[in-house]
Amino acid sequence: MNAAVLHAPRDLRYEQVPIPTPGPDEVLVRITTNGLCGSDIHFYREGRLGPFTVSGPYIPGHEACGVVAREAARPGGPREGQRVAIEPGIPCRRCAWCRSGRYNLCPQVVFLSAPPVNGTFAEYVAVAADFAHRLPDSVDDESGAFVEPLSVGVQACTRAGLKAACSVAVIGAGPIGLATMLVALAFGASPVYLVDRLARRLAVGAGLGAAATIDVNAGDPAARLAVLTGGRGGDCVFDASGSSAACACAPAMAARGGSLTIIGWPEKGTFPFPVESIIEKELDIHGTNRYCNAFPRAIALLASGRIDVHPLVSHRFSLDRVAQAFAFAADNPADTIKLMVRTA
Amino acid sequence: MNAAVLHAPRDLRYEQVPIPTPGPDEVLVRITTNGLCGSDIHFYREGRLGPFTVSGPYIPGHEACGVVAREAARPGGPREGQRVAIEPGIPCRRCAWCRSGRYNLCPQVVFLSAPPVNGTFAEYVAVAADFAHRLPDSVDDESGAFVEPLSVGVQACTRAGLKAACSVAVIGAGPIGLATMLVALAFGASPVYLVDRLARRLAVGAGLGAAATIDVNAGDPAARLAVLTGGRGGDCVFDASGSSAACACAPAMAARGGSLTIIGWPEKGTFPFPVESIIEKELDIHGTNRYCNAFPRAIALLASGRIDVHPLVSHRFSLDRVAQAFAFAADNPADTIKLMVRTA
Amino acid sequence: MNAAVLHAPRDLRYEQVPIPTPGPDEVLVRITTNGLCGSDIHFYREGRLGPFTVSGPYIPGHEACGVVAREAARPGGPREGQRVAIEPGIPCRRCAWCRSGRYNLCPQVVFLSAPPVNGTFAEYVAVAADFAHRLPDSVDDESGAFVEPLSVGVQACTRAGLKAACSVAVIGAGPIGLATMLVALAFGASPVYLVDRLARRLAVGAGLGAAATIDVNAGDPAARLAVLTGGRGGDCVFDASGSSAACACAPAMAARGGSLTIIGWPEKGTFPFPVESIIEKELDIHGTNRYCNAFPRAIALLASGRIDVHPLVSHRFSLDRVAQAFAFAADNPADTIKLMVRTA
Amino acid sequence: MNAAVLHAPRDLRYEQVPIPTPGPDEVLVRITTNGLCGSDIHFYREGRLGPFTVSGPYIPGHEACGVVAREAARPGGPREGQRVAIEPGIPCRRCAWCRSGRYNLCPQVVFLSAPPVNGTFAEYVAVAADFAHRLPDSVDDESGAFVEPLSVGVQACTRAGLKAACSVAVIGAGPIGLATMLVALAFGASPVYLVDRLARRLAVGAGLGAAATIDVNAGDPAARLAVLTGGRGGDCVFDASGSSAACACAPAMAARGGSLTIIGWPEKGTFPFPVESIIEKELDIHGTNRYCNAFPRAIALLASGRIDVHPLVSHRFSLDRVAQAFAFAADNPADTIKLMVRTA
Repeated sequence: MNAAVLHAPRDLRYEQVPIPTPGPDEVLVRITTNGLCGSDIHFYREGRLGPFTVSGPYIPGHEACGVVAREAARPGGPREGQRVAIEPGIPCRRCAWCRSGRYNLCPQVVFLSAPPVNGTFAEYVAVAADFAHRLPDSVDDESGAFVEPLSVGVQACTRAGLKAACSVAVIGAGPIGLATMLVALAFGASPVYLVDRLARRLAVGAGLGAAATIDVNAGDPAARLAVLTGGRGGDCVFDASGSSAACACAPAMAARGGSLTIIGWPEKGTFPFPVESIIEKELDIHGTNRYCNAFPRAIALLASGRIDVHPLVSHRFSLDRVAQAFAFAADNPADTIKLMVRTA
Repeated sequence: MNAAVLHAPRDLRYEQVPIPTPGPDEVLVRITTNGLCGSDIHFYREGRLGPFTVSGPYIPGHEACGVVAREAARPGGPREGQRVAIEPGIPCRRCAWCRSGRYNLCPQVVFLSAPPVNGTFAEYVAVAADFAHRLPDSVDDESGAFVEPLSVGVQACTRAGLKAACSVAVIGAGPIGLATMLVALAFGASPVYLVDRLARRLAVGAGLGAAATIDVNAGDPAARLAVLTGGRGGDCVFDASGSSAACACAPAMAARGGSLTIIGWPEKGTFPFPVESIIEKELDIHGTNRYCNAFPRAIALLASGRIDVHPLVSHRFSLDRVAQAFAFAADNPADTIKLMVRTA
Repeated sequence: MNAAVLHAPRDLRYEQVPIPTPGPDEVLVRITTNGLCGSDIHFYREGRLGPFTVSGPYIPGHEACGVVAREAARPGGPREGQRVAIEPGIPCRRCAWCRSGRYNLCPQVVFLSAPPVNGTFAEYVAVAADFAHRLPDSVDDESGAFVEPLSVGVQACTRAGLKAACSVAVIGAGPIGLATMLVALAFGASPVYLVDRLARRLAVGAGLGAAATIDVNAGDPAARLAVLTGGRGGDCVFDASGSSAACACAPAMAARGGSLTIIGWPEKGTFPFPVESIIEKELDIHGTNRYCNAFPRAIALLASGRIDVHPLVSHRFSLDRVAQAFAFAADNPADTIKLMVRTA
Repeated sequence: MNAAVLHAPRDLRYEQVPIPTPGPDEVLVRITTNGLCGSDIHFYREGRLGPFTVSGPYIPGHEACGVVAREAARPGGPREGQRVAIEPGIPCRRCAWCRSGRYNLCPQVVFLSAPPVNGTFAEYVAVAADFAHRLPDSVDDESGAFVEPLSVGVQACTRAGLKAACSVAVIGAGPIGLATMLVALAFGASPVYLVDRLARRLAVGAGLGAAATIDVNAGDPAARLAVLTGGRGGDCVFDASGSSAACACAPAMAARGGSLTIIGWPEKGTFPFPVESIIEKELDIHGTNRYCNAFPRAIALLASGRIDVHPLVSHRFSLDRVAQAFAFAADNPADTIKLMVRTA
């Protein structure tokens, strides 16, 4: 089959590799669409991300949907010909975290595209049958490939304990911040404010339902949010900025008794943080690490028509032009939101 | 001022009564719109409801909005001229329930229109300033009068722990059932199924977002729901039917690990109930009694445009024709959803 | 190996059967101690219980601990020679319930001793390695065999959302009721009231920490509880009586805003139940079906010294006298609490 | 009456002041016992603490119990002659926080001993009747004065969502850390580890139920906790150290999916904090600010005999020697745990 193989930083080749052989509980999925994630770009550009380093030829990608080409032996999973979204983190199913429902914290999780594990930028992928989630006809392929980043938003809103009618501020209007905003709106949040430094992204957010946007270039965003909320702040604040400085400002944006949920890995691991305000306002700070039990919910929200992700797709490529897709995304971060790569 | 005074069953008179004198922490509200509730009709028709009996001239009504005519001495409340929705149950603020946030369970709650306490079918009402909730301009008067029944739905969905993307079945398509469905949709529920015996009401529900409607005349609704949900049942089932028979069928409609929230007072207090299925499916059954901390949330959902209650308003009267409004509602239960009475 | 094989009602034979062959993810456990459960007695006496019928020779028992005789191939499980308590319900690990942490609701769960699946009254049992929970030295064999019924109590108190310092009433002072009381005390409940009709069992409960006992022969238990709690009732009420009549009285014992958790399967599936009080007091009714994620917690509570189950062991037998143990328990229900059967 | 009046740093005088006049909803309490809090010492030594400054003669103290000398006009409160513990923060009862049960976050809370509001080191105090919590006979005066710091522990364990049988690490073995440890044990936590730099305090903690103590002088406490917990870390970590450095180490002590609850105000408001580990381990960080709905629970835990605070009382003074008590505590921080001041 054809696949996108990363040999070295900026050396991504569209080439022939063997079709993977599914295990007894796995399905073989013919991929139709892949989304390009910021982490893919990190591996492409720098050959590493956090604790992971690319040390040999490896296939990136973990935002994918496709069609079941071969179903699993065990009954109950998706059948041949059915369309599925692939949940890329397969846990051990046996540890305390797996058994209590937080399988994303399984110490032995195998995550597609975390090197050296291959990912989904290929014609075929083998994956555990119960991690291939059926897509209804009303959810098209691009939406199917978007289930993964939406699930990050579902996890964040769930971890936040977001209740309908609460006010929300999302810091960071990249794909994850915008996905989180869409999910927050689908959860009934109101109003939702969006914070970023790029006017173009804020404009996209305004078109997707943000009650107001806050440009950090225009002054202290916490002061601006205070004006917008009558001095109260946001009931649930999300930081999807990936910026230590932005994250450190987030507690000031939260209401007394509110919460801050941190999605984006800040560029520094340890940095000055206003712990005092956690105590004074009795805040809850929630970390999120990927997702658990979120894919079916993201699919249901897409199927209901509550969420339309197409406005977030800024560019489209075919799989044979995958090297160009990566190069374009790596070189134009401010101009892209989500790139989609279509296999066939 | 003018008010609707119930002297005896079916003897409702539009007549002059003294304007109430607000206490130091109360506002005087000039009422603009009242919704007519099923409990008002019970008092009108039978002179009693549950533990309450009408024993003297009394003013019904508790679904009201208006304009502040005189503000309270203590600062912080709504100001003169501001539009407000009236939360009609004023608790003691001092008992264990009040202090822990479940003030609807306060044993000393004073509820407007629970005889002998007068209600809101009048030109003026005095109410605790913090129970007069400001309405933004985007929420019109009929919507403001609808905040009360919507709050019943907010309470029910909150008590149910309804999470976005869960499936819902609402039994009973009267005003409370429909309000609950609208709130469930605003909380992100999907899909939502509606169950009733009246085709007319089911048609209204279908137009308001029900994924499918289930006519109980057409066979066992639990069997029908099982077909619609692939055998799983509803994650959250709501019973707003007021029917013991319907309530007893509700556990069969819930998914394993799901919940049943009972809103409508069944006509019998004690009746055969399938307790076994509570255990087998490890269900949660939640009672709801009015609401607490729900009015601001209902207003926010209206203000966000997520909920439009106007399709539920089936008839409109002016206050001087309030006797006709009650008589019409009492005589045409199947033809009415929500009657609105406009003061001026 | 030797095992207790039930051939027909009251025909339990201590006889030779093949040693089970563990699968690749299973351990082989040499059983040291079994507790005798009421459900075992139902199968022994009537050949059936609920949906389960004994249709051929079958080994009962599911409250067992032992020593690992052969460890599993996959690393991470208990090692040869380590002592373990056996969690008897093995789920599929792949369905929505398993993945969200409520694996006890897995539709495909395999439960040791649910006919035709063999149970633990044998010298050896094979079980999934991660369902064989290590016992510390401070937890002796009888306590290890008691982990299973304690886990029912852990599940009940967890489902109830029992918070430390809340008041509790436990209806039913059999082994499960007493185990639930011990767990409630370990969770910090205070005071805990115990309700039963047998003075002997109430006396045991009084010795184990009940603040007061309520004999239902002496009058309405709800009225008595109201006196004891200053009119408030119990924050968390548990029904472990297995009696429809007792279960129907339970809502009257709960405080406004409180909960009722139903553990014992009432002898009737559907019976008159005071649904009205669920609404009026805004109660939560929680069903419990076995347990999930409870064994490690029950073991920790035993290891901490918070719970001592030995006072609940009323009789002891050796495995070769297992037929006598069953006959004695079947014939003397009121005189027995927990019978323990020691293998070696 | 006599009272301890702070005129300037280290100028505390035992002198005559007028008896306060209770309002209509207030009781007058004759104080019997006061505990001396670290914040009292801050005001005594430095004249300020956080945002509060002593700008005139003022009475410190907020850990008090006494006897009702004059009951309130409104029925329902404690009666003359009844013993009560005083909850010192009186909220507005009308804001969104008060109405939703988190009244400790009320922006208008009046806190006894937060200058310029007088506190409890006096013969009489007037306080809202519902904030004077009845003490049963089984709770003696010193325990009654300890209800306030215990309530800090109750709030912390509640905010942490501490479940029975979870493992706990408490950082800081001062009065609040020890109180939190006692409450965690009463909530069923097991095992509980205690971390400090003072061997004397760790020895006290070992005698009160700590499974092990960790001396930070002996090396990295997180590494030591990892050894004790088989690499897992603590399910619930509490920081009661008041040290920024200790607080910054706390996330490393938490298990994947665990929580960190911050009680002690670190000496710096903003400091380097390992935010990355919040994300990686998907932690919850909870701030706590005083308490709400905690006094009745702390009293119930004392009454049940689960908590004995007397080992924490290191020194006792009479009220007329209150100046000596303050001076001793200010000069011997490492040698004191809790000082009690007895009025009569």
